[in-house]
Amino acid sequence: MSEHPLASLKIRLRHGDTFAMGPGKADLLEAIQETASIAAAGRKLGLSYWKTRHLLEEMNQCFRQQVVVTSKGGEKGGGSQVTETGRMALAQFRAMEAAAGSAIAERVAAFQELLAPGNPADN
Amino acid sequence: MSEHPLASLKIRLRHGDTFAMGPGKADLLEAIQETASIAAAGRKLGLSYWKTRHLLEEMNQCFRQQVVVTSKGGEKGGGSQVTETGRMALAQFRAMEAAAGSAIAERVAAFQELLAPGNPADN
Repeated sequence: MSEHPLASLKIRLRHGDTFAMGPGKADLLEAIQETASIAAAGRKLGLSYWKTRHLLEEMNQCFRQQVVVTSKGGEKGGGSQVTETGRMALAQFRAMEAAAGSAIAERVAAFQELLAPGNPADN
Repeated sequence: MSEHPLASLKIRLRHGDTFAMGPGKADLLEAIQETASIAAAGRKLGLSYWKTRHLLEEMNQCFRQQVVVTSKGGEKGGGSQVTETGRMALAQFRAMEAAAGSAIAERVAAFQELLAPGNPADN
């Protein structure tokens, strides 16, 4: 979630009571871009098919346009594609994560000076 | 967690396998600053006394110095104080939240343009 192993940074974008985007939904869109398949993307992320469909339905309800479309049959046997809206939302989200990570970098380094040396789990 | 109701931003700072600081721990330190009492601070946040002590123990193990000290008796009847280390850690954390929120503000506004009008929960 961050370029600092010390800091974890989780951003979520709300639409009403639903999260339109967050780390899990961003990963799902990326996996669909890679696999062109909703089922394969879910498996890659260790999600049940039900959970995968549920995340996509939530996203599709939040945005003006669908974030993933599925074509059945055709020359290539169909498949699922991330739409322009989905790509833009994903790109904005990843850019937010990067910008927020950069914005806190110096303070994270200063914070680290306050921490005890070593790993408390070793005690 | 953020100045944008649309965006929620959660920062956590790790020390080994333990979170040295996060939203809950920051709130606890602030409540101890206000109340000068670990028990009162926990009640204010709706935490059990066990949970409150556990959060403080985790923090005290993570930092070079304790984040809260308790004096027993004395003229004012004792009480708990956030130490200089605790104050610095809290201040850095709140500054990180503010910096990260500012860093994503423009992209949050752009993201919002992609969202459907209205609240999906109303559908």
